[in-house]
Amino acid sequence: MNDAKPLIGKLALIGIGLIGSSVARAAREVGLAGEIAASAATDGSLEAAARLGIVDQTDLDPAKVVADADLVLLCTPIGVYRPVTEKFAKALKPGAIVSDVGSVKAVVKKDLADLIPEGVHLIPGHPVAGTEKSGPEAGFAELFHGRWAILTPDEDVDTDALETLKAFWRGLGSRVELMDAEHHDLVLAITSHVPHLIAYNIVGTASDLETVTESEVIKYSAGGFRDFTRIAASDPTMWRDVFLSNSEAVLEMLARFSEDLTALRRAIRWKDGEALHALFTRTREIRRSIIDAGQDTAEPDFGREH
Amino acid sequence: MNDAKPLIGKLALIGIGLIGSSVARAAREVGLAGEIAASAATDGSLEAAARLGIVDQTDLDPAKVVADADLVLLCTPIGVYRPVTEKFAKALKPGAIVSDVGSVKAVVKKDLADLIPEGVHLIPGHPVAGTEKSGPEAGFAELFHGRWAILTPDEDVDTDALETLKAFWRGLGSRVELMDAEHHDLVLAITSHVPHLIAYNIVGTASDLETVTESEVIKYSAGGFRDFTRIAASDPTMWRDVFLSNSEAVLEMLARFSEDLTALRRAIRWKDGEALHALFTRTREIRRSIIDAGQDTAEPDFGREH
Repeated sequence: MNDAKPLIGKLALIGIGLIGSSVARAAREVGLAGEIAASAATDGSLEAAARLGIVDQTDLDPAKVVADADLVLLCTPIGVYRPVTEKFAKALKPGAIVSDVGSVKAVVKKDLADLIPEGVHLIPGHPVAGTEKSGPEAGFAELFHGRWAILTPDEDVDTDALETLKAFWRGLGSRVELMDAEHHDLVLAITSHVPHLIAYNIVGTASDLETVTESEVIKYSAGGFRDFTRIAASDPTMWRDVFLSNSEAVLEMLARFSEDLTALRRAIRWKDGEALHALFTRTREIRRSIIDAGQDTAEPDFGREH
Repeated sequence: MNDAKPLIGKLALIGIGLIGSSVARAAREVGLAGEIAASAATDGSLEAAARLGIVDQTDLDPAKVVADADLVLLCTPIGVYRPVTEKFAKALKPGAIVSDVGSVKAVVKKDLADLIPEGVHLIPGHPVAGTEKSGPEAGFAELFHGRWAILTPDEDVDTDALETLKAFWRGLGSRVELMDAEHHDLVLAITSHVPHLIAYNIVGTASDLETVTESEVIKYSAGGFRDFTRIAASDPTMWRDVFLSNSEAVLEMLARFSEDLTALRRAIRWKDGEALHALFTRTREIRRSIIDAGQDTAEPDFGREH
């Protein structure tokens, strides 16, 4: 905390899981908000947040926590954005900003625009950060450090409101990028949604085999499979909602993935070693670029302990 | 080193990359071998091994390093097992053990059985361990700690030779399991080979898109994609040979993976949220079992630094 007036007078978090609680921790650490309030679907989450000392006010009724809030951040699964916003929309104060942290962006305006009162600014957002853990205890203040926060404002967005939201994410340690919502959903389909889907899929395939037991799959997972299980341990409700909300882009990217996989199967069947080697060499370069861009550790095995 | 007679008088490593050099480091650290010799395809690798101080003898000619060796371990890509063994087979001493570290096992006996002289014991093996890095500098002594080493001996294997090889891997820190070679190849197809193939595939798909730039893929990779790029940075030659040597089991597992993925695509298209949620819940359990089995860290994000 410092003595200067905080960027946000009152911050209201609707949902206090991995992302919401990380926002609360980080905002508190740098003194970004004068007051932090949280609502959640269950008493348990609110009690945990209070116990962790990361919020000043908790209430099961979201209308109570958004009263007087300057920034309202939806941190629930996307599927409940509309019903929960219906509960608090009328309590929003004029000039407030409503934003979110969901992994799909076009759906936000579509679902919420008609609920947001005149004079309240709806600016969807998405911090590209997370872990496979869920719940208030799983959050940590450094989650957004060096990660990108993508905002998808309308063209006629209020400039001051946008600048405040940008400053908020920068204050949490993020880099900020503006993007068209539809383009965001296409980019995230390939960098996040399809990777999650194929991770979920292969873990399902592995556990359904008759010729290989589940205990063998678990025992010998160090050969590569275990990386996929981490992703496939992500929150089921959140991810169900992502796929339902971004179905078009996900299906488009999945179709391309499947086409390419068919070509690889053919290369294996016809023992086309050159085609395999060419792909495997090309993909190495992408890894290098990700490390150079500071988006992953260069440590072998992600720096896992051996 | 201790004063007792080491388990292996002379250890010959054919290939001194990530795995070969890790074996050398670990064997040296615990004094498992009286002498460690290495051959490799290039001077550069041998010079690196000598510089690292992990071998006592190096020679481009594998026949020179297997002379007097008690254990010869093939640590090259599988595709060169036969040509390289042709070069040294006649120099093997009676009673020697020839083994390997390759990720496919049925092919080893098929490729090498007729080359191995009478009185020499061929026992294929596979330490289920590794990282995405390659080369002698990438190795480390702890690579095999707590990992499984799978041996696939014939039924008429020499018991003493098998016991020696088991003791060798245990000495390196591994747990040892015996398995039928064909079954090994099926298990590893799902726990390692198919995960690698789909990681290579999605990284290729992502870099070929016209609607999303490569720099966007890199920037926003923290949403899941970057995990796949680590696997897709693995050694291209080694992995080409794995797919060519285990094509039948890989194609079988890929067919199942593709069937399951088609069902998921259908669930997304028809907005079947229940089917998605059911799968995503089931896969979480597998992750827990892998952590309980000590096969991965429970740290969020593999313990990546934030």
